[in-house]
Amino acid sequence: MERTSVKVGLLGFGTVGTGVVRIIAAHQEDLFKQTGLSIEIHKILVRDRGKKRNVAGTEHLLTDRAEEVLYDPAIDVVVEVMGGIHPAKEYICAALEQGKHVVTANKDLMALHGAEILTLAKERGCDVFYEASVAGGIPILRALEESFSSDRITKMMGIVNGTTNYILSKMSQDGAAYEAVLKEAQALGYAEADPTSDVDGIDAARKMTILSTLGFRVAVNLEEVDVKGIREVSKEDIAFGKKLGFEIKLLGLAQRDDDKIEVSVEPTMVHRSHPLASVNGVFNAVYVYGEAVGETMFYGPGAGELPTATSVVSDLVTVVKNMKLGVNGQGMVAPYKEKRLKADGEKHSKYFLRMVVADQRGVLAQITQLFADNRISLGQVIQQPYHEGHEAEIVLVTHQIAKSDLQQALLALADMQVIKEIKSWYRVEDGEE
Amino acid sequence: MERTSVKVGLLGFGTVGTGVVRIIAAHQEDLFKQTGLSIEIHKILVRDRGKKRNVAGTEHLLTDRAEEVLYDPAIDVVVEVMGGIHPAKEYICAALEQGKHVVTANKDLMALHGAEILTLAKERGCDVFYEASVAGGIPILRALEESFSSDRITKMMGIVNGTTNYILSKMSQDGAAYEAVLKEAQALGYAEADPTSDVDGIDAARKMTILSTLGFRVAVNLEEVDVKGIREVSKEDIAFGKKLGFEIKLLGLAQRDDDKIEVSVEPTMVHRSHPLASVNGVFNAVYVYGEAVGETMFYGPGAGELPTATSVVSDLVTVVKNMKLGVNGQGMVAPYKEKRLKADGEKHSKYFLRMVVADQRGVLAQITQLFADNRISLGQVIQQPYHEGHEAEIVLVTHQIAKSDLQQALLALADMQVIKEIKSWYRVEDGEE
Repeated sequence: MERTSVKVGLLGFGTVGTGVVRIIAAHQEDLFKQTGLSIEIHKILVRDRGKKRNVAGTEHLLTDRAEEVLYDPAIDVVVEVMGGIHPAKEYICAALEQGKHVVTANKDLMALHGAEILTLAKERGCDVFYEASVAGGIPILRALEESFSSDRITKMMGIVNGTTNYILSKMSQDGAAYEAVLKEAQALGYAEADPTSDVDGIDAARKMTILSTLGFRVAVNLEEVDVKGIREVSKEDIAFGKKLGFEIKLLGLAQRDDDKIEVSVEPTMVHRSHPLASVNGVFNAVYVYGEAVGETMFYGPGAGELPTATSVVSDLVTVVKNMKLGVNGQGMVAPYKEKRLKADGEKHSKYFLRMVVADQRGVLAQITQLFADNRISLGQVIQQPYHEGHEAEIVLVTHQIAKSDLQQALLALADMQVIKEIKSWYRVEDGEE
Repeated sequence: MERTSVKVGLLGFGTVGTGVVRIIAAHQEDLFKQTGLSIEIHKILVRDRGKKRNVAGTEHLLTDRAEEVLYDPAIDVVVEVMGGIHPAKEYICAALEQGKHVVTANKDLMALHGAEILTLAKERGCDVFYEASVAGGIPILRALEESFSSDRITKMMGIVNGTTNYILSKMSQDGAAYEAVLKEAQALGYAEADPTSDVDGIDAARKMTILSTLGFRVAVNLEEVDVKGIREVSKEDIAFGKKLGFEIKLLGLAQRDDDKIEVSVEPTMVHRSHPLASVNGVFNAVYVYGEAVGETMFYGPGAGELPTATSVVSDLVTVVKNMKLGVNGQGMVAPYKEKRLKADGEKHSKYFLRMVVADQRGVLAQITQLFADNRISLGQVIQQPYHEGHEAEIVLVTHQIAKSDLQQALLALADMQVIKEIKSWYRVEDGEE
């Protein structure tokens, strides 16, 4: 008898899970037109069956026993939207072992154990799709996988964390300080009570791991990402950035030169002329540079019940189409290139530095001499009185230099008598080489 | 014997065709890794075999006889990059009749005869892909087809013509007049000697036909698109727009409300806070609003040898993967929804109007009364002296009104004694309802 429906087991029934159930219900007819099969939620794993739910007619689907989903032979596809590493990983692996396809929105899991999960899926001839794990509603993984298949991607830059982008945008708009805006974001539900994973850049680093692995076809590990968060970004830095035409963004960077790569997440001075500079609030954007295509950018909501659920259901539609065609397990290309990471001497960028110095004759000359001695040429220099004391503030932007040269210069600067404090330094992204 | 290669016949060897040959040559190894097959250019149809070519090693592939490509049984896929309607259409149909898959970059053809070509392809079990036909290097068709498959798209707005966007950006940056910038664009090769198709919005309308057909799953015809070009856009309009926070863009709009649609191309006042307002120069962008996903935007190069060729080769990779899997002819969903077009009374927008009036007491009151009589409420009004004469200039922005009410008001205004001239009116897009 020919198959007429696909049965889905849902792991987790929080915000995204609820969105998935709603979207499938609302678009049943369209989904059928596209796939020729009806998509049915067959079981939903929840922690507490007694809890009141916002979606009517699902009570009879709820179970608190994972095995009722994972080992039910009627279930074709498992959709994991519970989050966290354990037991999500064990559940997904069990589902794959049972020959079930998997759609997941779990960036933490895919960043840490993606390669292992994809390998298991391939062995079992199963699909694993995870579009929702990076930049919620933006179909960036599919673009990297399919649309740029004939190009060579050399650079990806992403604003991939909505919480920190909200905080930095708000600091920039209102001239407000980090702590105040963080509190406001927490009150609005844009930041969690413990904001560590967002503000320290860990969440963004996970997403850059997934993006760089897919874009460069190299297995990048989370610990290979250089990470710096936004806690130290001051309103003075933002104000000085603006003077020079920059906005500060928590930018994920994945860059490839001569087949060596670097992946980082750090607050970056992005020039106003760059399309990433005007991505504000909780929006996400991923900028991709391909040798042939040149510059492209994908912009959209980075999170939220419905955007994320839309990505999940789109992945589900792809699984269903593959089932209908009998071609599952052919999806995402496993990373196959040799990984070579850049040393700091091979990472090149412009940098912004802000420091407080003694306000005496010849200081600027001493400092610029020090930069020259460290092979660093300067693009812009601003000097102005610092508060009302006998000190001055110097802000400068370098030309392209090696990161190792910057580090040398920072050490040498710290030893100089006339320098009172190095306030901050940032990578600069101005779209020019 | 198992297949080890896919043979491609290329129709046309101009800019894009050259790019396709170059990209396939440069990425042979990567393409093999992704598809498990080598992709070989087998024959190239050219008009003049004697013409000097920029790509070495292709001389023996050239032919000036179409049948040597279309009826060569060794050729699996035909890539059409010759442009124009005839004979491109006949060639593509002949290729499909022969069971060959087709990749085309031809927007004119797909806008006019897309439905017919897709139907023929489906009958023959062949793939037809045409990503490069809209917004060059931006993978927007794939996004509409796959990534938003579980969403309901209600609005698409596109800057889909690079020539006009270059002209309008330049007029805005330099405060220059249309004619001067057009000449400059022609000198730089951004505009053709006969710029009609670009500046009158026809090229953009073709692309909106393709986008709206795919996004709404409704067969939209070119003649159903309301089109207005940019010839009448004055530097005064641009300057007034700026004062009110707007940039003028030639915007393609495809909107769906209550299952009725409207599709238009017209110069539009786009508020600076909207991501489309900062898309400048020859870049393209398509903004998509889906009920679930919310706002997304895709940005990138709209044309150019390599971006366009990249899209063509990505489509080719999809064809090759489908061949390997044996699932060709399952691609693009044919439009299946009933088409209902909005009447002007059902099209709602804000509008910008600029007029010159007699500078006498009570004129503004008369005009605002006329708008009130036509059920039009106003959001912003500016009055200022016009040149040095006894006239004044009035600029106003309405709230959301029906297009039919605007038309009524324009007729009534034309009858008013005190109104010397209605200089211009524009649709306004400010991201609010």
